[in-house]
Amino acid sequence: MTESVQVDLFVEELNEQLRNGTIESFRKKYLSLHSFEQAQVMEQLDDEERLVLYSFLSPEEMAMVFENIDEDRQQTYLAEMHPVYASTMLGDMYVDDAVDVLSELEPAEVAGYLNLMPEKASEDIKELLHYEEKTAGSLMTTEYVAVRVGQTVLEAMAVLKQKAPDAETIYYVYVLNDMQKLLGVLSLRSLIVSADDTLVDDILNARVLSVGVGDDQEDVAKRFKDYDLLAVPVVDVQHRLLGIITVDDIVDVIEEEASDDYAKLAAAGDARTAERSSWESAKKRLPWLVILLFLGMLTATLIGQFETTLDKVAVLAIFIPMIAGMAGNTGTQALAVAVRKLATGEAGEESTGKLIVREAGTGIITGSVCGVLIFAIVSIWQGNMALGLLVGSSIFITLIAATLAGALVPLLMHRLKIDPAVASGPFITTINDLLSILIYFGAAQLFLSYLLK
Amino acid sequence: MTESVQVDLFVEELNEQLRNGTIESFRKKYLSLHSFEQAQVMEQLDDEERLVLYSFLSPEEMAMVFENIDEDRQQTYLAEMHPVYASTMLGDMYVDDAVDVLSELEPAEVAGYLNLMPEKASEDIKELLHYEEKTAGSLMTTEYVAVRVGQTVLEAMAVLKQKAPDAETIYYVYVLNDMQKLLGVLSLRSLIVSADDTLVDDILNARVLSVGVGDDQEDVAKRFKDYDLLAVPVVDVQHRLLGIITVDDIVDVIEEEASDDYAKLAAAGDARTAERSSWESAKKRLPWLVILLFLGMLTATLIGQFETTLDKVAVLAIFIPMIAGMAGNTGTQALAVAVRKLATGEAGEESTGKLIVREAGTGIITGSVCGVLIFAIVSIWQGNMALGLLVGSSIFITLIAATLAGALVPLLMHRLKIDPAVASGPFITTINDLLSILIYFGAAQLFLSYLLK
Repeated sequence: MTESVQVDLFVEELNEQLRNGTIESFRKKYLSLHSFEQAQVMEQLDDEERLVLYSFLSPEEMAMVFENIDEDRQQTYLAEMHPVYASTMLGDMYVDDAVDVLSELEPAEVAGYLNLMPEKASEDIKELLHYEEKTAGSLMTTEYVAVRVGQTVLEAMAVLKQKAPDAETIYYVYVLNDMQKLLGVLSLRSLIVSADDTLVDDILNARVLSVGVGDDQEDVAKRFKDYDLLAVPVVDVQHRLLGIITVDDIVDVIEEEASDDYAKLAAAGDARTAERSSWESAKKRLPWLVILLFLGMLTATLIGQFETTLDKVAVLAIFIPMIAGMAGNTGTQALAVAVRKLATGEAGEESTGKLIVREAGTGIITGSVCGVLIFAIVSIWQGNMALGLLVGSSIFITLIAATLAGALVPLLMHRLKIDPAVASGPFITTINDLLSILIYFGAAQLFLSYLLK
Repeated sequence: MTESVQVDLFVEELNEQLRNGTIESFRKKYLSLHSFEQAQVMEQLDDEERLVLYSFLSPEEMAMVFENIDEDRQQTYLAEMHPVYASTMLGDMYVDDAVDVLSELEPAEVAGYLNLMPEKASEDIKELLHYEEKTAGSLMTTEYVAVRVGQTVLEAMAVLKQKAPDAETIYYVYVLNDMQKLLGVLSLRSLIVSADDTLVDDILNARVLSVGVGDDQEDVAKRFKDYDLLAVPVVDVQHRLLGIITVDDIVDVIEEEASDDYAKLAAAGDARTAERSSWESAKKRLPWLVILLFLGMLTATLIGQFETTLDKVAVLAIFIPMIAGMAGNTGTQALAVAVRKLATGEAGEESTGKLIVREAGTGIITGSVCGVLIFAIVSIWQGNMALGLLVGSSIFITLIAATLAGALVPLLMHRLKIDPAVASGPFITTINDLLSILIYFGAAQLFLSYLLK
């Protein structure tokens, strides 16, 4: 896997050729690359070099490159192109990719580009532009291959050959009736192994899996995973075929959803936009930090309530971070397990009651082990069994409460139709900080006479 | 998306039919389902019903179902089948899936099943069994379609039709020379649009992307994402074709790697094995909790060093959890960003020096904002500007240090060839607890005379 090195060498050579204006030798070399590599090269050019690149490549050639350009940069590049060049290029892209680019722009800009485009292309794009983000509709393309019921395998193959250059996949052929209703699917595989005069009706698979146009992209991704699909048809409520979604887009969705969950667990903001400067990083992280700062003040206020106790037994302060830390740790563990279960749909198999019993059990086991350990350590270290008992029993109760909180908060959010992943690690950690301090100082009040003797 | 409801209803009906022994009606109904649904139904049967199921289905039919069974359950089901039935079924599965099942068993058990299998199947499996987990070799299958250089499109299509029933994908045809060396690839798309007498040599794509048999699965997955592949050939060092990897397996890898990173961030252990009981949960989480407990004792010991200071100014204790918490939060954010950058390969674009400068800048910005805020709040709340200055400046320095630690620890691990994701949230949080307490009490010593006045 050494393509990044190759790309680096190549960029130098291409820069040389770009500057010296040897169009033909540049084009020959550049166009021999895979479009992903072409995009990598382009992303390493400076502003001036990119302008030369646009003059060297046709809009159609640029369309292939542009589909692989980083989302953050697409807007910049688009703005520096001549509007006619940009429109033609957008019209030459796969419809779903063009829609992804345009949906990030202001309505006036979109209208501008669409006006300059061939009518067929602009209509295809308009049709897809109004679907909501993160739904099946926003992922689908209209570039599929469909045949009518009653056609033969030979006729279907002819349609296929004609549509092949533009279609996003030719490995599934959809069979429709005259009302555009989806009756079934033919795999290219089945077309190839069937005799030419076979009717498509006889070999179509009528148990075709489809998704609704408004379905959430996470549900669509789950369907691809479960059924090992390469593409899935998207239908409206009347079961009419609107478009298809291909597996390459689903791979991106899975990556995106996982990154999102991950970033939320760390309260690190939107994971998809790259952090290129300190300002960008700070802008993304600060809102969370400020919220957590105020939540942290709650902990401080809570401990403030016990200041007189602390004044009498200063040694109590020593164990605050450890107890709060353990509460945070065990809560984050339980949270992560619950969030992943909800995300992978595994949670449906289990009732809430069972989950609570199981997590309470887990808390009792982990709490007992850690509680006994810490009791022994503190008793010996501080030579004070009462203190050991206080810290040990606090850990025991804290772990049970924190484990339950970690599991129940995401579940509750899921019930309330809030994405459970926003119950981030730092958030649950702060809740558990409060819980643990309440438990610790509550217990300390009870033990106070023993601690003071 | 209502298949789970359908499956539930169906399970009842099938149970009825299973108990009453109406084989034919059961088979008709069951075999009309997609193999994923068949697996879902099977997973809801009890032990006795499964034994009836084995008697109703041929090993070949069971092979399709078994590929979709949850990994955790496959071992149990395999053990309850008659060895001959189990072996025949394993031989009928896709080779890569059969290898996945067998690689979880003891060598003696594997040998037992292989002995009972047709020779061809057992040889194919043996060939793949010795590849290391999480490498390209462990993901690949040998069921691909290949033609020799010099053949025509018509001949290639004939090979394709013959191989179609067993091949994992027929959408790519690989062109080899007599030494089994990979010369290029033909998409089914290009075969279909070419004339019958065209030589495959003339239409093959010689710039075929391949992966090495020892390549890490995460790198292979990245290649699928970058190049929008449906399948990739796996080659040895002499560039001979050993097998292919298909996108359905890559979808699982992406999901698995993301879940792993996620679970590690939360220190929740291996995310792939389901937690079904409190014991299982506790067994997975306890090792981490005990390690973190001992790390927590370090914090306690550290604060213990400052006990005399605490004795004099008990109010100091109030802010310990908040400062430690903020250090943990900002560290986790920086960690998550760094781990995702390393995982998606984005980190290579940036030098370490630049990363350090950027994260330090981020720390200075977030530290200034939070520091000033907390200075104002504490000064007013406690009516003590010296205390406000102490807590504010501690937060300022802590956020810078903690942000840097969060970013540098995974980077360092990456350099040392350790998976950066094991630098979990709780781990970095504990390191930052120590850092922040050192900073806070260090500053408190300096301010001591002002605090006491």
